[in-house]
Amino acid sequence: MRFELLHVDRDTGARAGRLHTPHGIVHTPVFMPVGTHGTVRALTPEEVESTGAEIILANTFHLSLRPGGALIRRAGGLHAFMHWARPILTDSGGYQVFSLPHLRRVTDEGVVFRSPIDGDEVSFTPERVMEIEEELGADIVMPLDVCLGYPAPDAEAALALRRTLLWARRAKAAHRRQDQALFGIVQGGFAPERRRQAADDLVALDFPGYAVGGLSVGEPKPMTYDLLSAVTERLPEARPRYLMGVGAPPSLVEGVGRGVDMFDCVMPTRIGRTGMALTAAGPLSLRRSSHAEDLRPIEAGCPCPACGDYTRAYLRHLFKAGEMLGPRLVSLHNLAFMGRLAAEMRGAICEDRFGPWSRATLARYGDGVGRGNRPDAAEPSGTLNGSEA
Amino acid sequence: MRFELLHVDRDTGARAGRLHTPHGIVHTPVFMPVGTHGTVRALTPEEVESTGAEIILANTFHLSLRPGGALIRRAGGLHAFMHWARPILTDSGGYQVFSLPHLRRVTDEGVVFRSPIDGDEVSFTPERVMEIEEELGADIVMPLDVCLGYPAPDAEAALALRRTLLWARRAKAAHRRQDQALFGIVQGGFAPERRRQAADDLVALDFPGYAVGGLSVGEPKPMTYDLLSAVTERLPEARPRYLMGVGAPPSLVEGVGRGVDMFDCVMPTRIGRTGMALTAAGPLSLRRSSHAEDLRPIEAGCPCPACGDYTRAYLRHLFKAGEMLGPRLVSLHNLAFMGRLAAEMRGAICEDRFGPWSRATLARYGDGVGRGNRPDAAEPSGTLNGSEA
Repeated sequence: MRFELLHVDRDTGARAGRLHTPHGIVHTPVFMPVGTHGTVRALTPEEVESTGAEIILANTFHLSLRPGGALIRRAGGLHAFMHWARPILTDSGGYQVFSLPHLRRVTDEGVVFRSPIDGDEVSFTPERVMEIEEELGADIVMPLDVCLGYPAPDAEAALALRRTLLWARRAKAAHRRQDQALFGIVQGGFAPERRRQAADDLVALDFPGYAVGGLSVGEPKPMTYDLLSAVTERLPEARPRYLMGVGAPPSLVEGVGRGVDMFDCVMPTRIGRTGMALTAAGPLSLRRSSHAEDLRPIEAGCPCPACGDYTRAYLRHLFKAGEMLGPRLVSLHNLAFMGRLAAEMRGAICEDRFGPWSRATLARYGDGVGRGNRPDAAEPSGTLNGSEA
Repeated sequence: MRFELLHVDRDTGARAGRLHTPHGIVHTPVFMPVGTHGTVRALTPEEVESTGAEIILANTFHLSLRPGGALIRRAGGLHAFMHWARPILTDSGGYQVFSLPHLRRVTDEGVVFRSPIDGDEVSFTPERVMEIEEELGADIVMPLDVCLGYPAPDAEAALALRRTLLWARRAKAAHRRQDQALFGIVQGGFAPERRRQAADDLVALDFPGYAVGGLSVGEPKPMTYDLLSAVTERLPEARPRYLMGVGAPPSLVEGVGRGVDMFDCVMPTRIGRTGMALTAAGPLSLRRSSHAEDLRPIEAGCPCPACGDYTRAYLRHLFKAGEMLGPRLVSLHNLAFMGRLAAEMRGAICEDRFGPWSRATLARYGDGVGRGNRPDAAEPSGTLNGSEA
């Protein structure tokens, strides 16, 4: 994998670039739709691609438990298995493991837990996770890490950070497939000094890309952005930066302004399935009775099929009648919205107008019809690493 | 609407024809996918069209209760509302009304029932149903009829038949839109003599097409086919014939052999949503563990996306993981199967080989891997008129 930094916005830290992967080019900043189980929920790969998505995320934890890495390897890898020919990033599943109610044992060696599917005892070590990720065959792979909630006691944060770094080293040593890029994950809790130290230690290991994990897990937004800035300032300019589990439109804009290149979140598809549509003026609940006779599209001018072919009244009818086409169409619209948002950001960066563009965009979004229904509210800590399970 | 009878098979009663409607031509024999609430469950209209479907069915009962005929009229009619530009047939909802647990009152005037959605008292008369169907704007519309289960006491059957004929007369008198063809429905219970009488009485009213209702509601299959033959023999050759709520592949073949032109059933989409796929060798349950590592498509050579792009192992994974893409893809495959079946029948009829073709097709289907899972078993009486509710 090769990262090509094309342009840095003159007045902000926003960057435009290109990730060259074995399955094609990804233009950054990029939003990566989440397909936890090897499918972006409710959509075909062709539909996902039609939204402008150039890379998707899948989850090693979920896929290793079902259907298993060995089957996916025999099927020709995850790309062939799920019929997606473009780049894939697999998360390690660290976040999911540390969210389990039946976590059995965490040691320096790794974690032992009970499978939520069949109750079997499963062991994850940095080496085992790399092995599964090699079976899946994604273009970008994440190492096993220790995830914290907010707030985290200092001793716990220190221990988690020490293990995350230890595991990053072991993952790097175990990493073999040269067609897969192993990123490092900056953890470190909620103290800026520890985050900076974590970034420095990780950078010393020399990864081809760096993720920021453990943010947007319940801490106040200003703290998120301060910690993010503290980290990105320490990361090498020539490597891509990935803010894990963050996907609300305002958070994307704020993250890009702080030099982040990649994002993922289940939010657009998750809220889409409930009838909440993203628009430039903020989210719109299609279940509201005010849309019962509304013959307008979700968003005028949006080129997605949900907006081109259907009215709000029809979409509302689908949701009221419990028809699957509703979740499909609004998921599709929301990913198209995220695709357009990322494309707009790239354009603004390349033309050195990201600052004014982002202020106007954030103001419009906040003033929208959806006030009180901002997707931030629909992005609980549970979506941090993008699990839909 | 105009029906053009193209060819009658030399050795059987099978017919090939063309229905000319305001929204285009329908080649018969035809299978009509069911979109009860104005959506063929889980699929877009484009996908439905890609299966070769030239006409779909929707339900007046369901659509009148939600979202209401008035809204659909304001949206430009059902074609525009649901984004389907080809022909539509709306069933009256007689079957649904007579299946309701809270049916209040049936008189010669009509039926009064409680809405299953909000408990409101609703009155359906032949005139009211025609009024709603004019708001919906389908190409072919069905009159309100009285539906019986099997077995039916003789007095009940006689009363039901009398009312069905009375209501057919009133529906015809109330029918105004010349761009809509009002079919007659032959009821009459399970005595061949009464069925013949019903057909004769209805034909005397001169409808542009005739449906056979109240079959496949639990009676033995030989009785179904005997009653069907008794009726089709009395119907005018120049008018299309529609066997309501029947859609299992063997039943379609048997029906076509007895001179039926049109069929509808929820079965292909309903069983598709549970992971049951139709194949020429019989239905195939994708949930079975025997498909866990099966890297073959559902059916080799099938041109649908489910077969072209995915393996049985992946589809099984989608169902095991509860992912919506599974029901989508298998619904799509099943409709594509029905579309291919209808096209094969048309070809066999036009080449005067329907007899041998149907014997070979029925034998292959019965000998298939799915023995014991034939869709007949998945076609309970509740699907008679094609309701998915």
